[in-house]
Amino acid sequence: MELREGLIERAKKGIKDAYSSEEHPLIQAVNAWLELTKSHNLAAERLGEWFGVYAPSLEQLPPASTAKLTMLAASGELDRESVAGVVGKEKAALVYAKMADGLGRKMNSDESDAVAGFVDYVLRAEAAIERLEAYLKAASNRLMPNATYLTDEKIAAELLSKAGSLERLASMPASTVQLLGAEKALFKHIKYGSKPPKYGVLFKLPAVTAAPKDQKGRVARAYATKICIALKADFFSKRFIAEELKKSLDESLRRINESPPRERTKTVQKGARKRQGRWYNKRGRTRTEAR
Amino acid sequence: MELREGLIERAKKGIKDAYSSEEHPLIQAVNAWLELTKSHNLAAERLGEWFGVYAPSLEQLPPASTAKLTMLAASGELDRESVAGVVGKEKAALVYAKMADGLGRKMNSDESDAVAGFVDYVLRAEAAIERLEAYLKAASNRLMPNATYLTDEKIAAELLSKAGSLERLASMPASTVQLLGAEKALFKHIKYGSKPPKYGVLFKLPAVTAAPKDQKGRVARAYATKICIALKADFFSKRFIAEELKKSLDESLRRINESPPRERTKTVQKGARKRQGRWYNKRGRTRTEAR
Repeated sequence: MELREGLIERAKKGIKDAYSSEEHPLIQAVNAWLELTKSHNLAAERLGEWFGVYAPSLEQLPPASTAKLTMLAASGELDRESVAGVVGKEKAALVYAKMADGLGRKMNSDESDAVAGFVDYVLRAEAAIERLEAYLKAASNRLMPNATYLTDEKIAAELLSKAGSLERLASMPASTVQLLGAEKALFKHIKYGSKPPKYGVLFKLPAVTAAPKDQKGRVARAYATKICIALKADFFSKRFIAEELKKSLDESLRRINESPPRERTKTVQKGARKRQGRWYNKRGRTRTEAR
Repeated sequence: MELREGLIERAKKGIKDAYSSEEHPLIQAVNAWLELTKSHNLAAERLGEWFGVYAPSLEQLPPASTAKLTMLAASGELDRESVAGVVGKEKAALVYAKMADGLGRKMNSDESDAVAGFVDYVLRAEAAIERLEAYLKAASNRLMPNATYLTDEKIAAELLSKAGSLERLASMPASTVQLLGAEKALFKHIKYGSKPPKYGVLFKLPAVTAAPKDQKGRVARAYATKICIALKADFFSKRFIAEELKKSLDESLRRINESPPRERTKTVQKGARKRQGRWYNKRGRTRTEAR
């Protein structure tokens, strides 16, 4: 009986330890952030289109301004001054004139209530996104200061979320980190011999986006290598070595940038056949041919 | 010069008239409602998963309860009474015990701020959905009372949104109304000879969902026929004839329900070939064969 109780206690402690890490809320927060930004973009687009019914001659404004102007129109407090409070003094006269030109529909009372509810939702979504971003920043810097220093809090947290836990992420080789988030393209490559992916989540790095097409892969690789070292420091030694890593990363990037453009090669699978512009092969072996 | 101004005035009046109809906000509102319910479901699922980090031994509760409990936990006001206010007196003891069993993670202050922001968003989304639903009900009943009486405000508004305007919708034959929203399946049928779709938006009718498999198509057809008459009354004669229509619709449904199960037939395209379990054909002609 004592043994049984002891074992239950031990299992409970195991659960408690596993849940106590800040990894879990960070993973939830980054996924919530990714989903919420998508929902918010969709809602902002919808609001822009809806607002067009009331002010058809006004060109599209940023979502937050559109939201506030819609609110003013819905509450019937539309005048030159309140418009100036939203879009600034210079544009106010033009925007007010276009909103009040009488071409758009006049709202009735049910309608203004529905619009106001929707605008409120869009603004709340924006506020929630900001609060999630603040948390991502704080938690990423606490949990993986080195990796966050090299990339940013969103990319670091997304890598963590794809890997499942910091321990797993820190144990991954650089090549795996480089391709986290590109699983679909990777398996398509293995199965059908399509082009191998060069990056997954790391595509969001400004350095990768800005690199010329033939250097993107090498830049992602350079980042992955250093991120991998940074993660090991974050999880195992808990030392802050990111400044040195950043220096050596910049050195690698400089070398990539200065290297002459590579001779283009074409990757073709052995026995692959081209069908509808794509390569299909079940064997998974690749060979490289000069183009 | 006078002619020019007159023509500009006339064009402006045309724009004004086109935008003055309540169709436009109704179409926007139903699309906003469809997108928002999707976003809300996603966020509610995410919240449930996130909440699991703090109360791993508690099974999933409805999203609204989860949201309120998370708020209590985030503000540190978790006690038996406040829990009873959310889940009711009977369940309160159990829920409180599972939340306070110490297995879950304790929130830190950044974390509770991020969670609170997200919960606030989920609750606002719920409120916005309710306000949109109230508007859909009011506007659909104003604009197409007959069609709304036969179906419901969401289905009527979605049909309107797919058609683009009430005039177009009212001019459509029943067969087109029946398949609104099934465009993808319809063109797949025409191009490749897959099975023809039986319903689009009308699939959401409870009568169609509840019908046995071999009657679903006929039930959708019966509805489409009556909706079509209802829409013509809504747009052209503006008379309320929905009660008689409903009676005659119920009669048709009764007849469909009492009819013996049909002998099964198989639709095969002339010259169609079966590939990977599907029928492919470029000719678009169909023939019916006894199975």
